[in-house]
Amino acid sequence: MKLNVRAELVYAFQSATQVMISIEPARSLDQTVLSERFSIADTQGLVRDFDEITGQRQVRACLEGEQTIVYEAVVDNGLRASLPSDAQEHVWNDLPSECLPFLLPSRFCPSDKFMRFAQREFADLGSGGAKVNAVLDWIHTHVDYVAGVSTAETTAERTFVDRAGVCRDFTHLGITLCRALNIPARAVSAYAWRLNPPDFHAIFEVYLNNTWWLVDPTRLAPVEGLVRIASGRDAADIAFMTTSTACECRQVSVSAEAAEDQS
Amino acid sequence: MKLNVRAELVYAFQSATQVMISIEPARSLDQTVLSERFSIADTQGLVRDFDEITGQRQVRACLEGEQTIVYEAVVDNGLRASLPSDAQEHVWNDLPSECLPFLLPSRFCPSDKFMRFAQREFADLGSGGAKVNAVLDWIHTHVDYVAGVSTAETTAERTFVDRAGVCRDFTHLGITLCRALNIPARAVSAYAWRLNPPDFHAIFEVYLNNTWWLVDPTRLAPVEGLVRIASGRDAADIAFMTTSTACECRQVSVSAEAAEDQS
Amino acid sequence: MKLNVRAELVYAFQSATQVMISIEPARSLDQTVLSERFSIADTQGLVRDFDEITGQRQVRACLEGEQTIVYEAVVDNGLRASLPSDAQEHVWNDLPSECLPFLLPSRFCPSDKFMRFAQREFADLGSGGAKVNAVLDWIHTHVDYVAGVSTAETTAERTFVDRAGVCRDFTHLGITLCRALNIPARAVSAYAWRLNPPDFHAIFEVYLNNTWWLVDPTRLAPVEGLVRIASGRDAADIAFMTTSTACECRQVSVSAEAAEDQS
Amino acid sequence: MKLNVRAELVYAFQSATQVMISIEPARSLDQTVLSERFSIADTQGLVRDFDEITGQRQVRACLEGEQTIVYEAVVDNGLRASLPSDAQEHVWNDLPSECLPFLLPSRFCPSDKFMRFAQREFADLGSGGAKVNAVLDWIHTHVDYVAGVSTAETTAERTFVDRAGVCRDFTHLGITLCRALNIPARAVSAYAWRLNPPDFHAIFEVYLNNTWWLVDPTRLAPVEGLVRIASGRDAADIAFMTTSTACECRQVSVSAEAAEDQS
Repeated sequence: MKLNVRAELVYAFQSATQVMISIEPARSLDQTVLSERFSIADTQGLVRDFDEITGQRQVRACLEGEQTIVYEAVVDNGLRASLPSDAQEHVWNDLPSECLPFLLPSRFCPSDKFMRFAQREFADLGSGGAKVNAVLDWIHTHVDYVAGVSTAETTAERTFVDRAGVCRDFTHLGITLCRALNIPARAVSAYAWRLNPPDFHAIFEVYLNNTWWLVDPTRLAPVEGLVRIASGRDAADIAFMTTSTACECRQVSVSAEAAEDQS
Repeated sequence: MKLNVRAELVYAFQSATQVMISIEPARSLDQTVLSERFSIADTQGLVRDFDEITGQRQVRACLEGEQTIVYEAVVDNGLRASLPSDAQEHVWNDLPSECLPFLLPSRFCPSDKFMRFAQREFADLGSGGAKVNAVLDWIHTHVDYVAGVSTAETTAERTFVDRAGVCRDFTHLGITLCRALNIPARAVSAYAWRLNPPDFHAIFEVYLNNTWWLVDPTRLAPVEGLVRIASGRDAADIAFMTTSTACECRQVSVSAEAAEDQS
Repeated sequence: MKLNVRAELVYAFQSATQVMISIEPARSLDQTVLSERFSIADTQGLVRDFDEITGQRQVRACLEGEQTIVYEAVVDNGLRASLPSDAQEHVWNDLPSECLPFLLPSRFCPSDKFMRFAQREFADLGSGGAKVNAVLDWIHTHVDYVAGVSTAETTAERTFVDRAGVCRDFTHLGITLCRALNIPARAVSAYAWRLNPPDFHAIFEVYLNNTWWLVDPTRLAPVEGLVRIASGRDAADIAFMTTSTACECRQVSVSAEAAEDQS
Repeated sequence: MKLNVRAELVYAFQSATQVMISIEPARSLDQTVLSERFSIADTQGLVRDFDEITGQRQVRACLEGEQTIVYEAVVDNGLRASLPSDAQEHVWNDLPSECLPFLLPSRFCPSDKFMRFAQREFADLGSGGAKVNAVLDWIHTHVDYVAGVSTAETTAERTFVDRAGVCRDFTHLGITLCRALNIPARAVSAYAWRLNPPDFHAIFEVYLNNTWWLVDPTRLAPVEGLVRIASGRDAADIAFMTTSTACECRQVSVSAEAAEDQS
């Protein structure tokens, strides 16, 4: 579908601060950026990164004082298919090498600690697609979506105990359980149509049947309305703003709406 | 039943080291020490602690070089009744004040993190006895007894994720879930008849129906053959040996056998 | 000195909630409660605990709806002496048995992890008093008082890394380092004259020279104006309000002022 | 210099296990593999990965039963220069994009928690080279090399508290402190001449003055005798053996010796 996405960030930097901003949709095979505008008062010295494999983009800058960053785009995110239950998983030897890091534990997704649980609960379900769907069902049944119980330091281990969290926590737990089943899984940031309240969304992707499949463990936004921004091992890799020193976030406004002329 | 219990500890202390040794059965209402012998080469300067409320005993000393500590006793542990499923729990106002610390989280039993899980899983089961029995069943079903996966620093949170551990870990998880249900629970060290291999055992007690009830979450030793040594908030309080500085443990031998003349 | 202390707590309880309230000064040898008033709308069913060894008091109740709890007292806190640098430490055998739990690690004070650091930094300083003063100096030099960087789950380990925190964190770090030096240390809650902004204060006590000595690692309130409420292993034991289930804290107002007629 | 390096790994796999083996020196600009031999009984189905940017190599396989893996090579590691104290650090905008992930915290290197400490201790030292050398001096002065105090789960946070560890722990702490200073740092596995006892070595690299510089925070092996194998965010990325399920490591023998004909 075709979507209008928009983000407006207002930050205050006490001194000259180096930043990485990751709010532009990836220019990847599964979505097309039809038009876009990135604006920031001080546009001198911007550096733009583009990852040829993933299509991800990032802006680097050095900012000071109060700064307003606005990004607007029209994106056609193509046809987002739902993960089929019979999607086959791969042995390691059959995976593309760029998938391998997403088999390993990471800071917020310590999958090595969940081997026994994942084996007991999900290992006998046949195909990889069935396993991932069972993981998503398990999370839906056992974890409550509650704001305020988690922080930027909450790991999947803690969410598994607490049984509550927000999209970031659901995503970390889903990734962790999939990796514990030897299924490559990575975190994805996205614009999300019909997410309420509107915000950047954290979801994840699993690699099955020679493809990365987007899934939303919170079930709060339809897969067909997701626009991918960045992907990485966990939330630390896909932050929309990373800064060299502490600063003040004054406003974050995000929207994703169906474009009028969409079919 | 009547039991012969015995412990032999061999430690090497590089320099003069202050120690607390907790291997003597409690002189409590529910068990009688018929005869006993505590021996250590250097018996000068021993200090003996006795807690009037719990009947617990402890020996303090300052030791150096290699030391062998032997304790032997004949104990009648009375009639250890199993927790009845209809045992009623108390509101806080009806608890004896000495029970209150055992409602709080502690280092290895962070019950505050398990409130949501415990409520979802066990809260609707009626009486306190039914809840505790459900906790014990849950642990039996979901956690494997495996040596070597945990350490002296393993918390109930980690065991809940790992789904494996030894008696100390089972006990911490059981205590944690009971406290999360507002049922007072405390760790107990014990000599255990028919525990295989023989060792000090870690179990726990819950306070219901005006009584502390001994339960064994590992189901490895029959309740009727348990001889209580010490109780406390968690394993840190009931260590058989606490030392002021690092030392080398060369041998720990423990036995608990039915006395010949028992009926 | 003679002080007027006052606390007003407003809480909202969604359903009948069991609570323990610890806001009354201890009736201990070192301070005298000259007059006091404890009020709560629903005073039926209050249970009062009194610990004969420490003189600590606590109120238990079952509360529902919005509740206002007010406590006011006039207290003479006697002569609070500062810890002398030559105060001698005790070998374990010479400690009263009630001091022993305060040698052990606890949840927020994992002193076992700090043995090496404490030995390297403080062990060669001679008397216990000199060691504790060096610990207080170290904290003053290396840790910043900053609100908002810590939570109710922050341990001394984290504060040692973060190098920032509030009174609770300073106290946990001080206790931890003292216990790592084999000096008994316990957490204390207090009313504090000249603490700005006014609030309950968290400080600690060390046992040296046959006495517990109050010290304030934040250096924010003079020792002569402290009124002791509760003591325990760490902050979990001395919370001014402990509840059986989550509730909403709407207001906490605390004051401690010199009584007019004080000499 | 020219070195003969050799590794022999003996593993037992209970069932068919997927593995990634990372023991071959990188074919990177700073070192040349003159000759090599990789042997494993079952050589069918090996997959070889080669990273064009870093020159790192890895072997994937599916193994069962007891397996012996032997790798031998002659490597010329060129001229390993020591980090100059005046090496300049870069602002983010001037870094190659492949350096950016090594600015971020990772599981074993939670640099976000060390911002305050690193700023206080090292920030005023001028050039990046001087800062990194000060970090290395600090570690040398404050942390003891002690086997057995850490595990595969030990983070830099824990090592900072414990003040003891092995090469992996020293490396994690060094990386963490550098990243907290906004200097890119990554973990490196290596063969190490004159390391005693011989083993795989964990060291790290910092990016300054447009180059990655190898440093050894343990000071146990001379930089001129290091042969780089893999690099990554922390130890999880550079394990010499990663397996899909638990297995038994029966032997690891490693050697690195000066080749006879070296100049």
